[in-house]
Amino acid sequence: MILVLKQNAQQDKINKLIEDFHSKGFATNVSSGTSHTIIGLIGDTSKLNVDIVSSIEIVETVKRVSEPFKAVNRKMHPEDTIIDAGGVKIGEGLFSVIAGPCSVESEEQVIRIAESVKKSGAKLLRGGAFKPRTSPYAFQGLHADGLKLLLEAKKVTGLPIVSEIMNLNHIDLFADVDIVQVGARNMQNFDLLKQLGQSDKPVLLKRGLANTIEELLMSAEYIMSGGNQNVIFCERGIRTFETATRNTLDISAIPLIKQLSHLPVIVDPSHATGMRDLVQPLSRAAVAIGADGLIIEVHNDPANALCDGPQSLDLEQFDNAMKDITRRVEFENKIM
Amino acid sequence: MILVLKQNAQQDKINKLIEDFHSKGFATNVSSGTSHTIIGLIGDTSKLNVDIVSSIEIVETVKRVSEPFKAVNRKMHPEDTIIDAGGVKIGEGLFSVIAGPCSVESEEQVIRIAESVKKSGAKLLRGGAFKPRTSPYAFQGLHADGLKLLLEAKKVTGLPIVSEIMNLNHIDLFADVDIVQVGARNMQNFDLLKQLGQSDKPVLLKRGLANTIEELLMSAEYIMSGGNQNVIFCERGIRTFETATRNTLDISAIPLIKQLSHLPVIVDPSHATGMRDLVQPLSRAAVAIGADGLIIEVHNDPANALCDGPQSLDLEQFDNAMKDITRRVEFENKIM
Amino acid sequence: MILVLKQNAQQDKINKLIEDFHSKGFATNVSSGTSHTIIGLIGDTSKLNVDIVSSIEIVETVKRVSEPFKAVNRKMHPEDTIIDAGGVKIGEGLFSVIAGPCSVESEEQVIRIAESVKKSGAKLLRGGAFKPRTSPYAFQGLHADGLKLLLEAKKVTGLPIVSEIMNLNHIDLFADVDIVQVGARNMQNFDLLKQLGQSDKPVLLKRGLANTIEELLMSAEYIMSGGNQNVIFCERGIRTFETATRNTLDISAIPLIKQLSHLPVIVDPSHATGMRDLVQPLSRAAVAIGADGLIIEVHNDPANALCDGPQSLDLEQFDNAMKDITRRVEFENKIM
Amino acid sequence: MILVLKQNAQQDKINKLIEDFHSKGFATNVSSGTSHTIIGLIGDTSKLNVDIVSSIEIVETVKRVSEPFKAVNRKMHPEDTIIDAGGVKIGEGLFSVIAGPCSVESEEQVIRIAESVKKSGAKLLRGGAFKPRTSPYAFQGLHADGLKLLLEAKKVTGLPIVSEIMNLNHIDLFADVDIVQVGARNMQNFDLLKQLGQSDKPVLLKRGLANTIEELLMSAEYIMSGGNQNVIFCERGIRTFETATRNTLDISAIPLIKQLSHLPVIVDPSHATGMRDLVQPLSRAAVAIGADGLIIEVHNDPANALCDGPQSLDLEQFDNAMKDITRRVEFENKIM
Repeated sequence: MILVLKQNAQQDKINKLIEDFHSKGFATNVSSGTSHTIIGLIGDTSKLNVDIVSSIEIVETVKRVSEPFKAVNRKMHPEDTIIDAGGVKIGEGLFSVIAGPCSVESEEQVIRIAESVKKSGAKLLRGGAFKPRTSPYAFQGLHADGLKLLLEAKKVTGLPIVSEIMNLNHIDLFADVDIVQVGARNMQNFDLLKQLGQSDKPVLLKRGLANTIEELLMSAEYIMSGGNQNVIFCERGIRTFETATRNTLDISAIPLIKQLSHLPVIVDPSHATGMRDLVQPLSRAAVAIGADGLIIEVHNDPANALCDGPQSLDLEQFDNAMKDITRRVEFENKIM
Repeated sequence: MILVLKQNAQQDKINKLIEDFHSKGFATNVSSGTSHTIIGLIGDTSKLNVDIVSSIEIVETVKRVSEPFKAVNRKMHPEDTIIDAGGVKIGEGLFSVIAGPCSVESEEQVIRIAESVKKSGAKLLRGGAFKPRTSPYAFQGLHADGLKLLLEAKKVTGLPIVSEIMNLNHIDLFADVDIVQVGARNMQNFDLLKQLGQSDKPVLLKRGLANTIEELLMSAEYIMSGGNQNVIFCERGIRTFETATRNTLDISAIPLIKQLSHLPVIVDPSHATGMRDLVQPLSRAAVAIGADGLIIEVHNDPANALCDGPQSLDLEQFDNAMKDITRRVEFENKIM
Repeated sequence: MILVLKQNAQQDKINKLIEDFHSKGFATNVSSGTSHTIIGLIGDTSKLNVDIVSSIEIVETVKRVSEPFKAVNRKMHPEDTIIDAGGVKIGEGLFSVIAGPCSVESEEQVIRIAESVKKSGAKLLRGGAFKPRTSPYAFQGLHADGLKLLLEAKKVTGLPIVSEIMNLNHIDLFADVDIVQVGARNMQNFDLLKQLGQSDKPVLLKRGLANTIEELLMSAEYIMSGGNQNVIFCERGIRTFETATRNTLDISAIPLIKQLSHLPVIVDPSHATGMRDLVQPLSRAAVAIGADGLIIEVHNDPANALCDGPQSLDLEQFDNAMKDITRRVEFENKIM
Repeated sequence: MILVLKQNAQQDKINKLIEDFHSKGFATNVSSGTSHTIIGLIGDTSKLNVDIVSSIEIVETVKRVSEPFKAVNRKMHPEDTIIDAGGVKIGEGLFSVIAGPCSVESEEQVIRIAESVKKSGAKLLRGGAFKPRTSPYAFQGLHADGLKLLLEAKKVTGLPIVSEIMNLNHIDLFADVDIVQVGARNMQNFDLLKQLGQSDKPVLLKRGLANTIEELLMSAEYIMSGGNQNVIFCERGIRTFETATRNTLDISAIPLIKQLSHLPVIVDPSHATGMRDLVQPLSRAAVAIGADGLIIEVHNDPANALCDGPQSLDLEQFDNAMKDITRRVEFENKIM
């Protein structure tokens, strides 16, 4: 950790600060420049809080030299992590497509979609039972009944299932769900993250709309520091000034996260823009840039979907997209 | 609700769509322009989901004419709402300052701060017991013990207390807290909002870092549609490209929210920028633009605060700021 | 154009407004909903200014139904435009790589780079002679001498050249430059755009850091409405809250612009993030999503480059990247 | 300047780097931490380019300790600068209101507005003759004729005039204009800035829509390093994700710029949100937070203004606003 002191810092205060750090077990390296004195702290600074150090009267700015994340850090764990979700493996060298409806609506609907996406090559089934909606007057999902229908579809098709959790009291309800999704709005719902850290259930952690990559990694750190090592990141678009698309897919985040961390990263091309026509182009970019998979919204009847219709592919569109995606995954020498 | 149809929409599909709307009880008004046909829907469109209507094959775009919020809407409730929080009134015509430490650290600390801010003119005491921290390794608050210390300070000083809730299972723990704060990261934690809607406890609802004003109003709608009419908004800065300040205070949001809604709006000048030197200037702007109050971080020893030191005022700085604020509130003919 | 009137609009004012529009040659379609009256204007509304219509006292909001751009609009010009730049064709079905140093520094440097990138497969040479730098104290480029060195490299290698113009008085200086680049900071320097509209010189128009896709198209409209039909768009990253990368590449913009317009779109993976390690991954994504080319910074000695070193590939890195890009362009059935 | 080296940096490369810096005249201070070696450079590092230093193979990150701006820096020039614009003084302790139409439309219009705003207390007249418009089909201003009309109004009322320049060849046209405005879109049109640096004409430099405060200061540095010390900053809203207002006024920028620089800062409450109703509330906030003035759009007939009608006050609204502003400026003990 490097401290740049204020230009007018008095020498006695500088001396006192250095003594303080020594008494806390840090070695220091002091450099007096033409305008500023700089203190380098040597030792395990992960326990120090940048905010507190910054607020010391004579300190102008503080720079952390080491990353604040540990368990997610590739430096601590150089090999790629492969996650097993109900028998399906997710991680480097593989490419896994998760597909299904925004909301589970009926047994007929979810089974029809599940069978169709399986035939098209999807390896897992997604479906929303608890839906985070901006408006309290919008459809909120079928809740526990929705999960039951998903499990029914799993029984029929054998596809492991992925569904979003919004409430830390629902952990037991999700016992048979293969991947628990934490949505963008809950990326920093720390109590939920801590709860998920207590189990070993794979967690699909979506990036928040205005969260940095570092914050995303720190949220995974909440889960992993609790003991659960099974975290999959999902880039799904961030909020910017551009209004032509609902969100802006931060495609650079994929190689960057894979540099920084050993955990898998998948892309959600449906929520990224909210536009059906862009799902396939974005999927192509995701495959090419090295994502470990996709999560795609598919509906048998998008025009009558109870949510997010405009971004859902219909069964035939998804089937066509998968033919294209498969060719591309093969080109990348990955296993689908 | 207005539907702009695609240029190439076939007449038979247009006719079928119009019939569908008629069968759902809507009257329609159809206008055929040089390039596009436009359908105006007449009736209670609040039940219609824009996303679903947008996804109809022949529909290009949809525009909602009425606001999606009801209970928070000033059109439905033209008079300003005044909220009673432990005997302190908050709302138009009044100006309430909430002050206290970011985190409750010890009995001595919180009582000393409470007595001092009371003397300086604060009407409520804030203090964090459950702290949302980006890192799992950072200080997370004293939890239930922190709440006890706050209640102790309330007993000693008589100041009603404000503290942040992060977990919907903690509602009972907050039974004696006068205002429950929902932090920026939980603004769209809908299960928490629904839970708070079940009580009549005043809720201080902070705007999320990347949430629009409309989304903020819709989150209040979650609380109010559950039955709890006591919501206070808090503008605390949004996330933008500017890095000189931690966040960017959206000062225009204050008059805009007060136009759209009857609920009180206060400003958090401490989190808005994360810089101590800017707390007083931003407080002045907040008073002048018509905010109903402020929530300010104050610490007896900012350099050793366990969180957010750089933005906390010390007791003397707060006292000086309050002298200035008081003069300005009087200038606005408001009661403090 | 659709006008939503205010809830309390008086009938006589509504009637007067309708008469006004009739007198200006528009037909109207009036719809009286439960809360709002809506007027649809029929006729050539491209002459109407949304701002002025919005400011009419009884008007609440205005929605334009047709896009404001014409010459760039694919609806007006369904076939893809192919642009000839010094004999090299750029557009759909082709894939063109432009490469070269951020700044031209010396004859030896630019010729060495030109020969090397040509051998690796680049079809055009880029090089900065006039450099837009945030600081007046930073290296500003070799100016006219830099252009001369580029022309020298063109003579030696036969590669057409691309260089940035910052000053409308420099048009003559750029007479022998094959593509004139308008940088992100000048995307709305309308006098420069108008000047470029007077010639038929191909223009590489980079998206501004905070400009929407619609604004980018409108800036091309400035050039095209002056008579110059040779515009190539360049997506180079936008400014967002994320600080891990210098900018955020808006990858969705590529398919979206190609839907809206018939003009070519290329990607700048170097400026998009400012990180050398991400140039190749982003190039892969650009090829896969359908971009018509790339513009890549290459330097023979990045560590001593006079600008933008951290994002430049060295000659060998570029050669390796091109081998990969070539394979991918073949996979897309495009000609390189 | 502080260099953090990569974890695996080899000692011989570190030694070579240190020798290089010594040979360039810098002293160094080297600190070997548990994970990283850190080099502090001592000497005049303002000549070093952060980008180049960052790109050295063994360097991970670089941190500049001193600000990159000099002439605008309050550290170099502690007293506030007061600027004389046609006899009107602008700067700390004073409060100057500039008012007038978005566009000059006719002699009658501009003189009527000028006389009225003068009577209401405005000290300078603004008016657009060259208008930066997103669309080439929108009204572009009356150009040289517009400037003549402004000068006419100046003759009649004695008010110094402010108008926007978009073209560096127009400097002579603006010879009698008292303050030359550089608009948001041209904030980094460096050739224009350099040209303005050659004169001593006061420049009103508006912040770009996506430019940081530091970039704004650096653009002023372009003007001042050319010799022109008369720069006035203008905060006019930045581009964020919020769409309820056209832009987001960054109110914190005012005290922050005044801390960093000795130059005056004014606020444009009209462009900040594009909403007439918010002009007066934002003006109150600007006065309270310490701005040195306002620039307000006023039109005698906003509903028929040729541009930006929705944000313009009419003559009576401006007169009422000025009564309120005057009272507030007096409260701040400033001279208007």
